[in-house]
Amino acid sequence: MKTDLQIAQECKMEPITAIAAKAGIPEEFVECYGRYKGKISDKYYNQIKNNPNGKLILVTAVNPTPAGEGKTTVTIGLTQALQKLGKNAITCLREPSLGPCMGVKGGAAGGGYAQVVPMEEINLHFTGDLHAITTANNLLASMVDNHIQQGNDLNIDTRRITWKRVVDLNDRQLRSIISGLGGKVNGVPREDGFQITVASEIMAIFCLANDLKHLKEMLGKIIIGYTYNDEPVTAKQIGADGAMTVLLKDALQPNLVQTLEHTPAMIHGGPFANIAHGCNSVRATKLGLKMADYVVTEAGFGADLGAEKFFDIKCRKAGIRPDAVVLVATIRAMKYNGGVAKADLSNENLDALKKGFVNLEKHIENIQKFGVPVVVTLNHFVADTEAEVAFVKASCEAMGATFAIARVWAEGGEGGRTLAEKVLETIETKENNFHTLYDDNLTIQEKINCVCKEIYGAGNVNFSAAAKKTLAQIEQLGFGHFPVCIAKTQYSLSDDPKLLGRPEGFEVNVKELRISAGAGFIVAMLGDIMTMPGLPKRPAALDIDIDEDGNIVGLF
Amino acid sequence: MKTDLQIAQECKMEPITAIAAKAGIPEEFVECYGRYKGKISDKYYNQIKNNPNGKLILVTAVNPTPAGEGKTTVTIGLTQALQKLGKNAITCLREPSLGPCMGVKGGAAGGGYAQVVPMEEINLHFTGDLHAITTANNLLASMVDNHIQQGNDLNIDTRRITWKRVVDLNDRQLRSIISGLGGKVNGVPREDGFQITVASEIMAIFCLANDLKHLKEMLGKIIIGYTYNDEPVTAKQIGADGAMTVLLKDALQPNLVQTLEHTPAMIHGGPFANIAHGCNSVRATKLGLKMADYVVTEAGFGADLGAEKFFDIKCRKAGIRPDAVVLVATIRAMKYNGGVAKADLSNENLDALKKGFVNLEKHIENIQKFGVPVVVTLNHFVADTEAEVAFVKASCEAMGATFAIARVWAEGGEGGRTLAEKVLETIETKENNFHTLYDDNLTIQEKINCVCKEIYGAGNVNFSAAAKKTLAQIEQLGFGHFPVCIAKTQYSLSDDPKLLGRPEGFEVNVKELRISAGAGFIVAMLGDIMTMPGLPKRPAALDIDIDEDGNIVGLF
Repeated sequence: MKTDLQIAQECKMEPITAIAAKAGIPEEFVECYGRYKGKISDKYYNQIKNNPNGKLILVTAVNPTPAGEGKTTVTIGLTQALQKLGKNAITCLREPSLGPCMGVKGGAAGGGYAQVVPMEEINLHFTGDLHAITTANNLLASMVDNHIQQGNDLNIDTRRITWKRVVDLNDRQLRSIISGLGGKVNGVPREDGFQITVASEIMAIFCLANDLKHLKEMLGKIIIGYTYNDEPVTAKQIGADGAMTVLLKDALQPNLVQTLEHTPAMIHGGPFANIAHGCNSVRATKLGLKMADYVVTEAGFGADLGAEKFFDIKCRKAGIRPDAVVLVATIRAMKYNGGVAKADLSNENLDALKKGFVNLEKHIENIQKFGVPVVVTLNHFVADTEAEVAFVKASCEAMGATFAIARVWAEGGEGGRTLAEKVLETIETKENNFHTLYDDNLTIQEKINCVCKEIYGAGNVNFSAAAKKTLAQIEQLGFGHFPVCIAKTQYSLSDDPKLLGRPEGFEVNVKELRISAGAGFIVAMLGDIMTMPGLPKRPAALDIDIDEDGNIVGLF
Repeated sequence: MKTDLQIAQECKMEPITAIAAKAGIPEEFVECYGRYKGKISDKYYNQIKNNPNGKLILVTAVNPTPAGEGKTTVTIGLTQALQKLGKNAITCLREPSLGPCMGVKGGAAGGGYAQVVPMEEINLHFTGDLHAITTANNLLASMVDNHIQQGNDLNIDTRRITWKRVVDLNDRQLRSIISGLGGKVNGVPREDGFQITVASEIMAIFCLANDLKHLKEMLGKIIIGYTYNDEPVTAKQIGADGAMTVLLKDALQPNLVQTLEHTPAMIHGGPFANIAHGCNSVRATKLGLKMADYVVTEAGFGADLGAEKFFDIKCRKAGIRPDAVVLVATIRAMKYNGGVAKADLSNENLDALKKGFVNLEKHIENIQKFGVPVVVTLNHFVADTEAEVAFVKASCEAMGATFAIARVWAEGGEGGRTLAEKVLETIETKENNFHTLYDDNLTIQEKINCVCKEIYGAGNVNFSAAAKKTLAQIEQLGFGHFPVCIAKTQYSLSDDPKLLGRPEGFEVNVKELRISAGAGFIVAMLGDIMTMPGLPKRPAALDIDIDEDGNIVGLF
């Protein structure tokens, strides 16, 4: 069987200028980055901003399991399928980070016959956006420490600097460090640490910015720490907002690539889906809506994290609304949720499937709470039996959700025809009453309660003493109107990764609140969230190499 | 008066494809990065590798002073002037680092009417080469620490890890840190530190690599530290050489841009000129020699550091030879060397000029020791008087050097006509007996003695106990045949930045030797060399911003 990389390398790509032309973009607005990647100029959006919006389709999924779901694959396959049906469709995805690529899971560009290409370049440096974000983040950090070294006019408390440096790699050694050692000329010693680039608040800001000016405003509002008098210190006070904006100027223009079937795909921005909102840039999505009749996009992790934040943060802030949700599930994932071990997932097991279906059921209900019509799609595996599929189909339809099988991994767009037809039918016939889950004017505590109870199924929400203290501080600083961004495990609807299926009435503990004043949301941490992953025993990087002809091998 | 940025922004650039066409590169071999930057494919070099080589002109300078010399400006202006004379010429330069750009000195793309453009993009992320080097460097570091964390099969002594992480910024806070704090899951605590990217051995390797395979071989030979049994541990043993090569694959292709007068310029690689060899990539230079009749290139700092390393490291390793050297001086710099304060440099002062001329004199003699004909050029300032110019001209000619005034900053190529004519005449008429200063088969100690005495003018060379110990280790490891790369202050011919003019018979102290086993040279440190700069009291970044129309302002 061919690897994803082999399939991708065999694709005869069209020049990016041809893809752009197909998407209706005049050549003057496309900046090529190599032959098969491009950036779309700001000026193009300004030219077409009065076009009516296309339809926005969000692809989300059940809670991830070791069995695999294939959300990105379905997102790409659905776009390819819409093209087969003669529709003008575009994919909007997140940019992959080099951390996982060199660490555990390899690339993030779809799979099988539903991939975006050039796969290697997308997974490696792409057009440099993540490097620009890394640099902007670290320039701010360097300017903060330099401010302190040069006299600390702002009276910054070195014990309360919240701004961390980043690298776009998995590097546990940098999680917790002491910096500034070595005497007077080498800085001021303090506790410090690094995050991975995609966890930077700048990534979240980058993905919420409408334009360069908006970007600069948000960057300026970043709180880098506090003074000895408990006053927040912002990036604007440090004087870094202008230079950071300049570093991000080119990056902010959406990237254009193609799928294996030469449909256009924009891959732009990629924030974490726990401490940030987990979806591609507002700029790419808004541009896509002006360019295409159908924009297919995805959100990180399961629907409890990804879809909720897509609706409550991205749609709220950007003023956009989804027209349909595609909820990806697999028979395997449901059986895993029903208690079947990973090794036994290929055997028919209707009892376990029924038991595990409740996870999907809860996600369907959740999406219905936002008033958006939902299409459940089974990402098909060879071992799925007719009886299993029939059960899922009947159960979904009983809940008022549309159902379709997707075979896009094996068959590309052709394998997504049924799904695409069902999605189109849903958009045309089903009622869409989209609304966010909660209003801006609830308190932060009420918003957190609302998401935990309504979406996760929690019975009680406890706030730690530290969290309560921050709640008061948030009100005092005037950030009470922000939406909340809840960081918790992606493996369960609850805050306990071991609670599979559909847990109910559990308690969750809000350990800590963090203010993302630039991005404009409050992060609520349910437990410890790792913002700097480590490499595994055997990193993927060990197998990545060039062959005798200079081709890349070992990238998955 | 217009700023460099204003002049650059007013230039009506030609599309990079047009510049490539002018340089004879078929379109299929040019990968565009935006409209005005490109990378030239490996395949093009293979296609033209049997072309005869053009002439190689090295631009170097006297020791830098606060008065300014304008080496890059002359390099670019000379190429523009050669075009005016109907010659097919190309510039090869180093890539700027973001560190100085955000720190003290601003950009590094020439000045006045002798600049490379697009100036902002060249000074900011350019085509991402430095980011690729940063990432490859840090991937290796992360894999080293992960190896230790996962059981340390190689028995690496955590007190003797020599490989440092890098950022492409000035950040003194990271010079000296303790990493791996926070308990068992967060790494192994150890002393650690960061360098600036351009100080990474990977940058030196990148600039000495003939091709991708050669790059991988050199990367694999990097010594990351030592075992508890004193054995060196290499990047190949860590298993990082393949993935690092993949990360550098695109970066290794030379970048093409244009000068203000639309002559082609390759800007590729930019190692430090103290702990590394300080000139652009071998790949760019070799490609340039196959493409053009004249390649004008520069080396870092003054001729004592830059030119010596260009000859003894780059030319030796790459098997290339220079056809002429242009030595840049200014009346102001000579008067500064003669004891005049910076504020008084605009006043005629023949005595001080005579006193300071000895610095230039020594550099002329030095270049003559390598057997290459030398053209001295005065980078003209308005305040230079006829008497002053006449003195310098007569003195240079008396030494057998050609002399020409360059007015390229104010006049572009037109202001470099005389210089270009003199350079052409020199190449055609003067004898060229180029040879390196020392043979491979001298010992490391003999090589260091040779450079310090012959080039710097030292009387005695002392080796510290630590340096002597490393000398023995170098022999034992079989690296005695490497050339030496001496790291010392750029401000004096000696190792004391305050000794201006032409010091003689001084003592130098070799404090420490470092083995760059991947790059293939031994670094000898004469004193403390900073490999991570700090930001100044008022960083340049404070003034860098976008204006209302989204244009960059404040970048110098």
